[in-house]
This record gives sequence, C-alpha cells and structure tokens, in this order.
Amino acid sequence: MSINFSKCHTVLITGASRGLGLQMVKQLIGSAERPKKIIATARNPDAAEELQALAASNPGVDVVTLDVTSDVSVDDAVQQVESIVGAEGLNCLINNAAINISCNLDTVTRDAMLKTYESNTVAPLFVTKAFLPLLRKAAVQGSGMGIHRSAVINVSSLLGSVQLNWGEMASFKSIAYRASKSALNMVTRCLAVDLEADGILCVALHPGWVRTDMGGTMAPLSVEESISSVLPVISGLTEENHGGFVDYSGENIPW
Amino acid sequence: MSINFSKCHTVLITGASRGLGLQMVKQLIGSAERPKKIIATARNPDAAEELQALAASNPGVDVVTLDVTSDVSVDDAVQQVESIVGAEGLNCLINNAAINISCNLDTVTRDAMLKTYESNTVAPLFVTKAFLPLLRKAAVQGSGMGIHRSAVINVSSLLGSVQLNWGEMASFKSIAYRASKSALNMVTRCLAVDLEADGILCVALHPGWVRTDMGGTMAPLSVEESISSVLPVISGLTEENHGGFVDYSGENIPW
Repeated sequence: MSINFSKCHTVLITGASRGLGLQMVKQLIGSAERPKKIIATARNPDAAEELQALAASNPGVDVVTLDVTSDVSVDDAVQQVESIVGAEGLNCLINNAAINISCNLDTVTRDAMLKTYESNTVAPLFVTKAFLPLLRKAAVQGSGMGIHRSAVINVSSLLGSVQLNWGEMASFKSIAYRASKSALNMVTRCLAVDLEADGILCVALHPGWVRTDMGGTMAPLSVEESISSVLPVISGLTEENHGGFVDYSGENIPW
Repeated sequence: MSINFSKCHTVLITGASRGLGLQMVKQLIGSAERPKKIIATARNPDAAEELQALAASNPGVDVVTLDVTSDVSVDDAVQQVESIVGAEGLNCLINNAAINISCNLDTVTRDAMLKTYESNTVAPLFVTKAFLPLLRKAAVQGSGMGIHRSAVINVSSLLGSVQLNWGEMASFKSIAYRASKSALNMVTRCLAVDLEADGILCVALHPGWVRTDMGGTMAPLSVEESISSVLPVISGLTEENHGGFVDYSGENIPW
C-alpha cells in the first residue's frame, strides 16, 4: 500500500510538534500524492521549531495553536482552520495528541488517572465535536466512506485492548494510559454510531510500539517505520473499517 | 444456583443506600447461607433510612460512611472496616457505587465525562487499593479463587462493552457512562493481572438492565430479579472467571 491522499484535500493532525504527529506531517509533505492542505496543531507552536521550519519551506502547511484540553483554544483553532479550508471543509481529522504519565498499580494517583483521561479520551471527543461542522461539509460530497470524503482517526493503542491485557502483553503496566485508551475506543465507537448517517468514517488506530519520547528506547519500530505504514492504512480505510480498531498493518485488534 | 456466602465471612458493598447495593444487603441478610459480617457503605448514611433500619434490626450488619471519590473518606472507612473484620480480613469487596450523568454526543460536557470517570472508574480503583491489605489478609488462607478467599467485584455494565455498542444495542447513548465503564473493565483487568499472585479474584460484572433510579422505568428487570441472579453468580465465581466480564446469568460478555 502507498500513501495516497490525492483525494483528501485537507488533513488536520493534533500534537504535531514531535513524535508520530510530526512524522505524519513530514511524510505527507514528502508524498507524491499529498493532501493539498496539511494543518498541524501544537499546544505551543513557538517551541515546535522543526514543525515551523517545515511549514515555512513547504506550501499548504499551516501550523495552528491548539491545546486540546481547552474549549477556548479549540474554538480559536476551529475558526482558523475554517478560514484555511474554506468551502471544502475538513476531510481528515487525526486526533494524535496524547500524554502518558508513567505509573503502575502502586504508584498511580487519582490525579494521574484524571489528567490522562482528560487529554487522551475527553479531548479527542471535544476536538471532534468542535470540528464536526467542517467534517460534515467535507462529507456532503462523494459516496462510500474514507478520507476522500470525511474521517476521524483516533490514535489509540494496543494497550487499550482489554482482551490483550493478559499474559506476556500484560507486562506493560501504565494503568492510567491503558484505561484512557480503552475509553477512547468506546468514544470512537460512539462517534462511529452517531456520525454514520453523515458519512463520516470513525476509526481507532494503533500506530505500533514506537521509539518516541512516549514509547521509549526499547520499542521495535522507528517513527519513520510506524508512519510509513500508518499513512497507507489511513488512506486505504473504507466503510468496512468504520467503528473498528486497526493497527499500523491494517489488521483488526480485539477490544 | 443459590446464594451461598457461608464460606465468605466478610463482604463490603459500596453505594448501598439504595438501588442494587441496598438490594444486595437485603438479600444477603435474608439468605440461609449469609456472610457473617455485611458492611454497607453510603456517602451519606444519615439519609439512608432503609439501610439504617436493616442494620439496626439485624446482627452483623454495619453501615460505614464512604465517599468513594475522597481519599480522606476512604482512609477513614478502611480504619473502621479493619476494626469490624479483625484478623479475618475482607473476603469480598463489591464496588457498586456509580453515577450516570444522562448525556449524548450533543449534550455531553467535559465536566460530565470527568465526573463520571472519577466516580465510576477512578474511585473503584482507589477503593480497591485502600482495601488491599484487608483483602490480602483474607486471601492468605485457602486455595483456588473465589469469595471463600478474596474477591473484588467491579459492577460494570453491558454499556461498557465496545464490541456490543453497535446496531440495536447502540441506541443507548450515555457516552460518559459508556466510556467510564469501558475504562473500568480495563482497570478490572489490570487489577486481575497484578493481584493474581495474591490469590485475589477480580471480575467485572454486568447486573442487567434494572429498574433503578439509574436504569429507568423501561428496564426489563426488577432490582429483586437482578440481585437474586447476581449474588449466586458472585458466590459461584472461580479462578476461571478471574479477569473476566460476566453478566447476571453468569455468561461471559465480550469487551
């Protein structure tokens, strides 16, 4: 599979200052079949030097300030994005921004549970709600489901699979992160149910275990390897994936 | 199956002032094979008149104040429970207290998401952590797994099943409640992984759709019907159910 965003005019990626989000921006820019407009959001764009340099040297790449946990910030971002995408609306929203507060059963705090849920579960829901008018605008045209029309991609994790949290796979503790991603999977499924009538594809996606600040140095995949698989999977999503949980190779993951 | 708590000396039920929790207390008291000590907690026991009357007229029933969202309250409750159960420890912790803030995709707020998560997901985790010394004390004796030794029962919901949130079953919206229960299922699984070595059984349990303040008047089951099935299921749990998700008839539910 190749990266083919030729029919996807506008993409927005949250948490694009580093890690997987930044790599998505890079590979989309470098793709022969790139989207016309790439909107990369960051909580603090001033500190996102590499992203700013990419935007400055490439046409059709905009950096927008977005703190996904703030309604005021989300509303400001929607206004800016609306002026960027215009009548075409937003074809693909990638909710990538997330945090991981390292903890296990002994060290977890109520605050760690709540903060992780706020960023990883509640924020993607409210970012999606805020961009719904632009997603619906893009979904009006076309048939079937996919990024040619309108899609919400929630970056989840294998660690959010309750079923797979057993045996060897259970050695990754991270209880706050795991619980937030299980709940994000439910939020994705709820969105899929409610947005089906609009023709908006909703999917939870596991990008692999990647050597990022979050994934650590033991992870088997580089960011380049992960995203060079993730982007073709996203561009190949159809109505068959609607409401599903897929990994970077396109395989389904049990809840 | 019958209610058989004869080998379960001590049970604690949170949220026992009304609904399913109160009914558990009633049926345990009325059972021929009742536990020696039943500890019923309520956020505000002064307002729990029916529960107080039950405790006053039946030996071995204690009402303990517990706000599951407050560390101070949890610590106070653990001290009281310790003095009630003594050297036997706590055989069975039933995390039943929960809230439901009615909302759908249009009406949900960040605050509704966070408050529901705090009560339904974070609280059962921290109540369980606080009672671990007493659960471990009870688990030292005996073999196999079950309430004869030590068990954590997290009252979850079919609405927490991501897989079943599709088609007809998806007509129950409640996004905040659904997400909190999916996350509770993950918390239950994490507890099961970490407490297996202690011999503490951990299970997520769906009590059915019940005519309570939460379930509404359309629900098919009365509280009596639900709990007369739930208690035999709890008393029959074995190591085969450890880390699982069972309903009031004992059937497994997909995550």
